[in-house]
Amino acid sequence: MTAMKRPRVVILGVGFGGMNAARALEGEDVEVTVIDQHNYHTFLPLLYQVATSGLNPADVAYPARGLFRRRRRVLFRQGTVTGVDWDAGLVELADEDPLPYDHLIVGVGARANYFGVPGAAEHAFPLYSMPDALKVRNYLLALFEAADARNDLIRAGVLNIVVVGGGPTGIEIAGAIAELITDVLEADFHDLNVRRARVILVEQGDSLLPMFNTDLQRYALEELRSKGVEVRLSTAVKEVGQDYVLLGEEGDYIPTRMVIWGAGNRASGLADSLGVAQGPGGRIITNPDCSIPDKPNAYAVGDVAAIPDGEGGFMPGLAQVAIQSGRHAAAQIMRTIREEPHTVLRYHDKGTMATIGRRAAVAQLTNGTLLTGYPAWAAWLGLHLVYLVGMRNRVSVTMNWAWSYFTWDRGPRLILETPRFEPPRRDGPYVPPTDVVQRHGIASD
Amino acid sequence: MTAMKRPRVVILGVGFGGMNAARALEGEDVEVTVIDQHNYHTFLPLLYQVATSGLNPADVAYPARGLFRRRRRVLFRQGTVTGVDWDAGLVELADEDPLPYDHLIVGVGARANYFGVPGAAEHAFPLYSMPDALKVRNYLLALFEAADARNDLIRAGVLNIVVVGGGPTGIEIAGAIAELITDVLEADFHDLNVRRARVILVEQGDSLLPMFNTDLQRYALEELRSKGVEVRLSTAVKEVGQDYVLLGEEGDYIPTRMVIWGAGNRASGLADSLGVAQGPGGRIITNPDCSIPDKPNAYAVGDVAAIPDGEGGFMPGLAQVAIQSGRHAAAQIMRTIREEPHTVLRYHDKGTMATIGRRAAVAQLTNGTLLTGYPAWAAWLGLHLVYLVGMRNRVSVTMNWAWSYFTWDRGPRLILETPRFEPPRRDGPYVPPTDVVQRHGIASD
Repeated sequence: MTAMKRPRVVILGVGFGGMNAARALEGEDVEVTVIDQHNYHTFLPLLYQVATSGLNPADVAYPARGLFRRRRRVLFRQGTVTGVDWDAGLVELADEDPLPYDHLIVGVGARANYFGVPGAAEHAFPLYSMPDALKVRNYLLALFEAADARNDLIRAGVLNIVVVGGGPTGIEIAGAIAELITDVLEADFHDLNVRRARVILVEQGDSLLPMFNTDLQRYALEELRSKGVEVRLSTAVKEVGQDYVLLGEEGDYIPTRMVIWGAGNRASGLADSLGVAQGPGGRIITNPDCSIPDKPNAYAVGDVAAIPDGEGGFMPGLAQVAIQSGRHAAAQIMRTIREEPHTVLRYHDKGTMATIGRRAAVAQLTNGTLLTGYPAWAAWLGLHLVYLVGMRNRVSVTMNWAWSYFTWDRGPRLILETPRFEPPRRDGPYVPPTDVVQRHGIASD
Repeated sequence: MTAMKRPRVVILGVGFGGMNAARALEGEDVEVTVIDQHNYHTFLPLLYQVATSGLNPADVAYPARGLFRRRRRVLFRQGTVTGVDWDAGLVELADEDPLPYDHLIVGVGARANYFGVPGAAEHAFPLYSMPDALKVRNYLLALFEAADARNDLIRAGVLNIVVVGGGPTGIEIAGAIAELITDVLEADFHDLNVRRARVILVEQGDSLLPMFNTDLQRYALEELRSKGVEVRLSTAVKEVGQDYVLLGEEGDYIPTRMVIWGAGNRASGLADSLGVAQGPGGRIITNPDCSIPDKPNAYAVGDVAAIPDGEGGFMPGLAQVAIQSGRHAAAQIMRTIREEPHTVLRYHDKGTMATIGRRAAVAQLTNGTLLTGYPAWAAWLGLHLVYLVGMRNRVSVTMNWAWSYFTWDRGPRLILETPRFEPPRRDGPYVPPTDVVQRHGIASD
């Protein structure tokens, strides 16, 4: 027997896809290098709770090196991937030497999709990473501090918070902000009427949660409205400005300093620079085994991938798809090494859920069972604790949740970086600024 | 009886001094407004644990509004104080209308004192606020990521961490960094020899912990050295550069990207703009009752104040002095309102302690008892839990401490903002750059 060099597997991204691929390979006879721009895995489903002061960053993030502490054959590298040299089999990195691979898994995830809405990329707040979540938290809390210190800012819309998108991301963040205001900020502010704050959820379609059963859609709508969220269905966003948003065809003008964008996502920028076939939202179209066509030994998994669902479409952008595709790509690499034929990814749908707030959630299980209210909420809590990485994080999240639940308080409501708010554009009853009026034939809200 | 307007007390700063003043007044028949640039109280004694990934920001910070949630007569305002109009009785604020006061307490704390060392203000890292601590954490962890990705940076000193100051701040951060390296990072990095990292503690005097008994000083020195910290006594810092530090009279050159400044503090900048008499470190010299001379109904407390100790000197800059002076100023305000004579602040020294790391600390009690090792460490842990504000924070800190203690892991080792490191100035064995050599007649380390 001759000594063989172990195959080198490089995994781009330590999200659900990349992390699960690496875990599936950590016991195998391969060298694994995982690269991510951050030094931690982010548990995206709970990011909105960091944004609304419910959880600490470290509760929903897990140090990437901690994942592989006892696996000396798995290396982590913090770095920015700039491209792939397919011919030479090299991953290109900013500031660093390129990294050779024998097998490659691309799992770099998604970013916000602004669908070309003017001003959205400049002024709206996405919620796809830990820095995004901390920025939303700092900004959100600072809006109320600014309103308290300078009442003229309220008239100029500083307490109007607009959430775009009626999918799970949008309803979760809108519900959490509404509860933050009524449960927490109302007790915090003694001489500011925080009920003057408006949370406006804008959805282009005619219902919330399009992927859910209509009963659950109706429940979510009622729950959100009962929490004080103004839900505007069949309403498109026309333009986002620094201190306003224009809604609908008529250009309904709402002064606001905070538009949170939860209206959909697209593949990370890296997908555009790989020279591969791209599907909806710029996702990398894969073969049914998650491999990238015409790129030997390369795979795409999770939100950056458009994996055929066998029915002419692609698999949805869900955590479960990312987890399963990550594991599947790892398995295909081992099959290649063992010279076995590849297999097709069959997605096991475990059901979908979304939470609206305290004791309010919806869940749709694969056997057709529908849950709302307390049972759905309890299921949601339990499932998220199970899927969260790391025992310390589970304990800390449980403690923070229990604390919020019983005390109606939220610990981590810290403004770690205070944004400055420009003063209102004019005095008097607030009307749209002339430049916006001139560009659109608009009516004031 | 005629309706009287309640006296308005304005408190600048929600540190130990301001917070305790406000708490002492919250049950009294006065209107209290507390102003701070941050929306939280920072528990400074544990800040170094945030900087070394032991604790979350929200574990050692408490939302200022949360302190006074049930006290409707205490208002909080997040804002930047720019000055005081003594004649009009107004606190001047950036971006906001001035705030009138009948009684004023100045408790705005301290900042790093660079003692005029060239380059220190530009390049050294202070550790006096939560943003400071997060910057140190991000930078410290990023040094190791950078060294792992680009080995040429090690030769250029990227793993040399220099701590300036042998007082409690310096030994606590140096000890915690040394333990972070050996307990945590060594397991985290599989192909980087993290033992190549050096932690160098520089103290100008001939012993550590000058305010402690010599036995405790010796113990601290031995403990730090046993943890791998290079302690350099009787060594001054001559200059700090972007990628080096010069030590001692001869200008011993050490390449480094991180110089942490724990060498002493001075009063916050506001003290310089008040037109009051200032003592050592720019502190506001007060009367023995904490009142500011010639400024009616105004007091200074905590680290911004130089309060006479009755023996010709001033009280030390300790948390206990801040707590007691804050309460004392509040009591004097009530005495003024009740037309009672003022009293002199008598400081009750409850002893001093400092921690070096796992099961290693020193404590010097007022009855003369000296503690080292496990007993001192246990006393330190217990006392800090007692003084920490908020039950949620106590539970969370306890959980994080227990986790670190039993697992030799640290949860919150997240780089939330990744600094970029300039490449080394030259190749080959690292020597001081020409411009530094020319300015000083220096020898390489």
